[in-house]
Amino acid sequence: MRAALFEGNQTFRVAPCVPVEPGPGQVQIHVEYCGLCGTDLHLFHGAMANRLTLPHVMGHEMSGAIAAVGWGVVGYQPGDRVTVRPLEPCGKCPACRAGHSHICHNLKFIGVDRPGALQGLWTVPAHTLHRLPASLSFKQGAMVEPIAVACHDVRMGEVRAGEEVVVIGGGPIGVLIALAALGRGARVLMAEVNPFRVQLARELGIDAVNPNEGGLAALVNDRTGGSGADVVFEVSGSAAGAEMMTALPRTRGRIVVVAIYAEAPKVDLFRFFWRELRLFGARVYEAEDFEMAIGLAASGRLPLDRLITDVVPLDRMDDAMRRMAAGGNVMKILVSCAE
Amino acid sequence: MRAALFEGNQTFRVAPCVPVEPGPGQVQIHVEYCGLCGTDLHLFHGAMANRLTLPHVMGHEMSGAIAAVGWGVVGYQPGDRVTVRPLEPCGKCPACRAGHSHICHNLKFIGVDRPGALQGLWTVPAHTLHRLPASLSFKQGAMVEPIAVACHDVRMGEVRAGEEVVVIGGGPIGVLIALAALGRGARVLMAEVNPFRVQLARELGIDAVNPNEGGLAALVNDRTGGSGADVVFEVSGSAAGAEMMTALPRTRGRIVVVAIYAEAPKVDLFRFFWRELRLFGARVYEAEDFEMAIGLAASGRLPLDRLITDVVPLDRMDDAMRRMAAGGNVMKILVSCAE
Repeated sequence: MRAALFEGNQTFRVAPCVPVEPGPGQVQIHVEYCGLCGTDLHLFHGAMANRLTLPHVMGHEMSGAIAAVGWGVVGYQPGDRVTVRPLEPCGKCPACRAGHSHICHNLKFIGVDRPGALQGLWTVPAHTLHRLPASLSFKQGAMVEPIAVACHDVRMGEVRAGEEVVVIGGGPIGVLIALAALGRGARVLMAEVNPFRVQLARELGIDAVNPNEGGLAALVNDRTGGSGADVVFEVSGSAAGAEMMTALPRTRGRIVVVAIYAEAPKVDLFRFFWRELRLFGARVYEAEDFEMAIGLAASGRLPLDRLITDVVPLDRMDDAMRRMAAGGNVMKILVSCAE
Repeated sequence: MRAALFEGNQTFRVAPCVPVEPGPGQVQIHVEYCGLCGTDLHLFHGAMANRLTLPHVMGHEMSGAIAAVGWGVVGYQPGDRVTVRPLEPCGKCPACRAGHSHICHNLKFIGVDRPGALQGLWTVPAHTLHRLPASLSFKQGAMVEPIAVACHDVRMGEVRAGEEVVVIGGGPIGVLIALAALGRGARVLMAEVNPFRVQLARELGIDAVNPNEGGLAALVNDRTGGSGADVVFEVSGSAAGAEMMTALPRTRGRIVVVAIYAEAPKVDLFRFFWRELRLFGARVYEAEDFEMAIGLAASGRLPLDRLITDVVPLDRMDDAMRRMAAGGNVMKILVSCAE
């Protein structure tokens, strides 16, 4: 089998690779598809270099079928169609002991701290597995991980039917948050500056506007009879997003910070005081979010095929990364890993 | 009767004044004591000038006895000992309709938007009244308003017995939050840079440290077995406080922003993501916080007399403000308004 080896310096080399035999408690998976994510792009550009051992195999949004099962693994057998929740918690730290193992103090994220899925055969702990139903194609199955992020975010934001939700940032996660919130019966407005993404969101039935055209706060007030939004999701990771997020919520409204900020932005803490706003950080997902995501994907209510911009072979990784970095007409790119 | 008339430009003039007769639904109060607060100091220094009609009477932390009762007021009569919850909500805005009238969109704060208590006879709506029990002296009664702020903050932070609480800022509100949290059975650590306030807090049984001496995060980790604090109250309003507040909480820990920030500070949103932190803004109080504050004050468990640094006559307002601004050995200054 082959793997896409990241060698640093924005370079991949696709090379033959010896598969890792599954040890006790592990399974080996024939990877079908692996989606590329903002985190992968950050790695490509040199971020988190201290966490990587080069050459490094990225990838954590995947689908596949079990190839082999290690000693002690129960409930799974070769041929089972699965996706992976790519988290390895330590099980011992205060966060794990408090039941928050997804934000373990010593969390290993598979695909960053451990080899990822951009290879033909991938070996992971069996506790990371979630079963894909027959009704989901492998392409759709590779979308489960980002859907689980969105399900976690919407759950953290306690979104309820009839609420007014604003999503700042219309990339894959922003769109999936919007769709998950619509699925809960909320009304959703998306703010996104990229015209391709605004257009795509609209085609998917999401009210979307370009906030640079002005009047976003007034629009939210119009939609809510002057109250303001019940929940705002900040997915842009921009200084403008950090400013916008406090201007839009109602009194006691909620803000969910989903974006990963490289630098601390200015935040209007006065507004938190003035309207008794609430802010919740949200990171990755828990097992229940994956189950919810699989259910949502299998329901057929998500236009997943519209979110997949392209499917490329393993040897076109560099090119795919450059298209994502350019940020133009791209939503989700899947890499075909089966050989 | 006389009033302390603020004339702008850091100047008070104490002058005879015609009492306002209580209209329908209003009461007139013989003011006994009125505490001076950070908000008054801000007004003194020219803040919120657009909300004042000069000359302006400040003051909103008070105690007194009813002098006269207007038409339609039931349940109160002359001689009743009271304090005032100085809020006039509109009753019509989305916040009021949602049951959050204390953060009404059109809130009038009595003592800022309306004449305050630094006068011999003060007329206010009867709906603002809370009864003072006989066991509370008038001096203690003038402390109910800041205690209610602390009760609201601790309630918003959902502080529970056994939790580890950090209070950043050891002025009157910080100390009262610490005492209210201790009263709920929490463990409390206070971070304060003023040596007088550190010393006073320690004498009141609060663990207090100077964060400029370093090692605060390590100390919090030591106290919590590496978990981090359950709840952090940011009461300092400083850039350093805004930085510290995100460094200290455990995974899913809570931050309550009590301070009023004149400028948006930098806030480590990455840390919110990383530890799934939660932040709650808290503003003033609701009726139940006043009742809780009166109960707490009457319980005798708060060392209120230790928090009252001095009691000054109405004509020494300028001097009292300058002592507060100097910020040295001052906690709460009460003004004696009875004549």
